[in-house]
Amino acid sequence: MTGTRGYHHGDLRRALLAAAVEAIEESGVTALSLRDLARRAGVSHAAPAHHFGDKAGLLTALAVEGFDLLAARLHGAGGDLLEAGVAYVDFAVGHRAHFEVMFRPELYRVHDAEVRAARERAGAALNSGVAALPARPGADPGQDALAAWSIVHGFATLWLSGALPERVGGDPREAARVVIRRLFW
Amino acid sequence: MTGTRGYHHGDLRRALLAAAVEAIEESGVTALSLRDLARRAGVSHAAPAHHFGDKAGLLTALAVEGFDLLAARLHGAGGDLLEAGVAYVDFAVGHRAHFEVMFRPELYRVHDAEVRAARERAGAALNSGVAALPARPGADPGQDALAAWSIVHGFATLWLSGALPERVGGDPREAARVVIRRLFW
Repeated sequence: MTGTRGYHHGDLRRALLAAAVEAIEESGVTALSLRDLARRAGVSHAAPAHHFGDKAGLLTALAVEGFDLLAARLHGAGGDLLEAGVAYVDFAVGHRAHFEVMFRPELYRVHDAEVRAARERAGAALNSGVAALPARPGADPGQDALAAWSIVHGFATLWLSGALPERVGGDPREAARVVIRRLFW
Repeated sequence: MTGTRGYHHGDLRRALLAAAVEAIEESGVTALSLRDLARRAGVSHAAPAHHFGDKAGLLTALAVEGFDLLAARLHGAGGDLLEAGVAYVDFAVGHRAHFEVMFRPELYRVHDAEVRAARERAGAALNSGVAALPARPGADPGQDALAAWSIVHGFATLWLSGALPERVGGDPREAARVVIRRLFW
């Protein structure tokens, strides 16, 4: 079955999400509208509403995609918390639009079942890295996970905002590794 | 000397900054305009432009005020890095508008001399906390400061975004203290 301009249904949805990422990276999420999105993707102005309902629906789909991508990257670290932390930073730097939307819950439907499931998959990957840490005095899986999340989220956010001093260097993965290593190693 | 509606010059400037904070907390920084600000503060529409030139000038003044407030809070921790970290989180939670603007350098003149000076005062307070840490193997003041900044910035950002799980509890200072303590203590 093909939709507007011969896109297969799933392809059009993906094309619209890709166009949304491009638009957010160029002009920010506030400026984004379903109408502009249709123009940008070269489809009928009704196509985005058909797929996502409204702007919050579009951003919910983007958040799901973002948490899924993040979960895949974290699971790719194979249970190594240091590598998972580096992967978190690398994801944030490589997917600015997703990362921004994911952590602005006022923009989308945070209680959507797909969002919750994707967010839980990402959280589970982080928790498995914490569970694999060598035993140490004062270990507490919940607090350790929160500390790990905080340090990688903070590093990524500061990197993206351009706030870090020049001495930090140009490679976010390497810089993040040195910083994260100070937490548990 | 009195200006619009009898404000003393410095008072009007402060009133405009306070009105900007209120406007950002209500409607976000994108929606803010100098004209709305004048209406909100009950002054002539020319007053904000007279004081700040343009929106970037207003946000530069807000960033200076924010970094000054932050520096004062960090210095108030008396060289104790854990307390400085808690103060950082408390500042972010209590001054959302300042905190948002400070870390969105595309919104203001980051190379402004006053911004740089205020940012350096805040950085110096963090560095003095790092310098006072007990000696430990692998210590590196620059990397330790970056790790401390990352963990408190990340915790504050996640707290503000509402992303943290409910089990973290309702008091950001207490929750931050437990998390930060995992870094060097």
